Amino acid sequence: MNTINLAVDCMGSETSLSEILEGINESALRNENLFFTLFGKSGDLNKIVENISPLNSRSKIINCDEQVLMTDKPTDAIRLKKNSSMQLSIDHVVSGKSNAVLSCGNTGALMAISLLKLRTVASIKRPSIASIWPNIKGESIVLDLGANIKNDTNSLIDNAILGSALAKVLFSMTEPSVGLLNVGIEDMKGNENVQKASEILSEMSNKKQLNYYGFVEGADISNGITNVIVTDGFTGNIALKTAEGTASMVQSYFKKAFESSILSKLGYFFASLSLTSVRQRLDPRVHNCGIFMGLTAPVVKCHGKSDRLGISYATDIAYSLVHKEVNKKVENILINEI
Amino acid sequence: MNTINLAVDCMGSETSLSEILEGINESALRNENLFFTLFGKSGDLNKIVENISPLNSRSKIINCDEQVLMTDKPTDAIRLKKNSSMQLSIDHVVSGKSNAVLSCGNTGALMAISLLKLRTVASIKRPSIASIWPNIKGESIVLDLGANIKNDTNSLIDNAILGSALAKVLFSMTEPSVGLLNVGIEDMKGNENVQKASEILSEMSNKKQLNYYGFVEGADISNGITNVIVTDGFTGNIALKTAEGTASMVQSYFKKAFESSILSKLGYFFASLSLTSVRQRLDPRVHNCGIFMGLTAPVVKCHGKSDRLGISYATDIAYSLVHKEVNKKVENILINEI
Repeated sequence: MNTINLAVDCMGSETSLSEILEGINESALRNENLFFTLFGKSGDLNKIVENISPLNSRSKIINCDEQVLMTDKPTDAIRLKKNSSMQLSIDHVVSGKSNAVLSCGNTGALMAISLLKLRTVASIKRPSIASIWPNIKGESIVLDLGANIKNDTNSLIDNAILGSALAKVLFSMTEPSVGLLNVGIEDMKGNENVQKASEILSEMSNKKQLNYYGFVEGADISNGITNVIVTDGFTGNIALKTAEGTASMVQSYFKKAFESSILSKLGYFFASLSLTSVRQRLDPRVHNCGIFMGLTAPVVKCHGKSDRLGISYATDIAYSLVHKEVNKKVENILINEI
Repeated sequence: MNTINLAVDCMGSETSLSEILEGINESALRNENLFFTLFGKSGDLNKIVENISPLNSRSKIINCDEQVLMTDKPTDAIRLKKNSSMQLSIDHVVSGKSNAVLSCGNTGALMAISLLKLRTVASIKRPSIASIWPNIKGESIVLDLGANIKNDTNSLIDNAILGSALAKVLFSMTEPSVGLLNVGIEDMKGNENVQKASEILSEMSNKKQLNYYGFVEGADISNGITNVIVTDGFTGNIALKTAEGTASMVQSYFKKAFESSILSKLGYFFASLSLTSVRQRLDPRVHNCGIFMGLTAPVVKCHGKSDRLGISYATDIAYSLVHKEVNKKVENILINEI
């Protein structure tokens, strides 16, 4: 099996260094051909890495003293921090030494540097951030979750094309259905951008370039009505976080309800095995990494507050994007089918 | 006690006529000074109403043959359907014969007709749709949920002013906190409109015109971080429906988990009393009516698919908006405090 090399930006996150390293190590235990190049302060990194196995034998460290802060503007992160762990980890992919990048840092800066250095594929003008969401039937791909917060027609079309291609590869489907998020399902609903985008997607659907379902509403994300849900980065980001907050609120309500009597507590105990799988299914840490789509190589962004579990799942996703050659296959779909 | 008169638009909904009438009757049972004028086909209405008490003694019927369809454009509903149940029920409030309007019909048309005939109060340029959302601490007001799908700075400011005033009256608070929904909490996050709106709201906060908290994220809606959450109608509508869908998905997961063994089923049974209150708290029917804010009189819009329970809660809300003189008090706040 070929080795898969992941460049890890270890700076600028709210997560502690040991959580990041323990997280990627958990993924290393599951994926035996996975190797890492770690970008950060070598002294700090060394101290932790030397005690973690198999990470200590499957990683090398490149020292960086400069970090992109959460408060840095993307343009400043590009111009003023050329030796930051973020820029150097992306450079490592550009030079072919790593296959993908993982970062928990500043999303806007990571997107701007990725766009500048990795560039977009085929006709894609702006990359977008995709995520895999749970629904009652299984999973769907939702994008954009915050790469492009301006709501314009072209980005929506790009998102639809990228989401459809990603679903084909990740879900092994031939014709994944694509829904466009709107305030209602009737043709006349929504603003000018979604209206225009819907017309273009219908034409593309007629030409068999993708399988456009039409408008979908917020509740259709968890209903699993389509395999892909397309929206702008502002709405998508807010919808994702609203869903996470709601899922967590409902779970806490349920937990409290079962504390009402000894017998209900007992029932909760006897359902605990099934409940663990429910919690796992809904755990935002399993879903909260963002896949940067439309670039020449995979970039995976963990939430800035991810713990080791979140980091380990995000590392698994970065691994499988490389392993399944997702970027190359998506590019082929864009060139040959659109 | 003064009587409260509600004009009910009984046409153009996906709900059956008997569900609508049973729903308002349930509210009539709870509110003994509540009277109705029902707009719709008098033959159909009469047949049902005569068998429902106390509705049969607390309502009169005004015959309408014309209805606004869900597919009608707002401008067509205004120009071409002057004798529709929707227009006539709003006219009834304009002429002072009813105190408020309840409708399950076309939201866009209802908003356009309300705006034209009831007009906005004080400095408000565009009305917005508010809803009361459950959160882990209690409830908060979220707006706009779809009145104005164009994301512009002035509407966000209007929404903040209206939401704050509504919270003062409905929650009996002196300084409800107001959050502006964004893709992150850092000052630099978001598009130009939310950036500009945030600056203006900070200035208003300095002048004690309202209590502006700053940016909030999607998850903060259910965290209950602020009493009011402000956003544009496109994002708000999608966030609301995403939250409803997620809450329903999580509940169905939990239900399934407790079907895994006899003992867990038993535990579920023993927790059923507490679970009923959880379900009630999360029931979208309790929350899914929209309060049209910024008009001279209360207009309440039920979801087009509301059942009798949803209709009865919406009727309760219309009742208390009149009973608490919310519109007058909100107008006073806008005139004297802003």
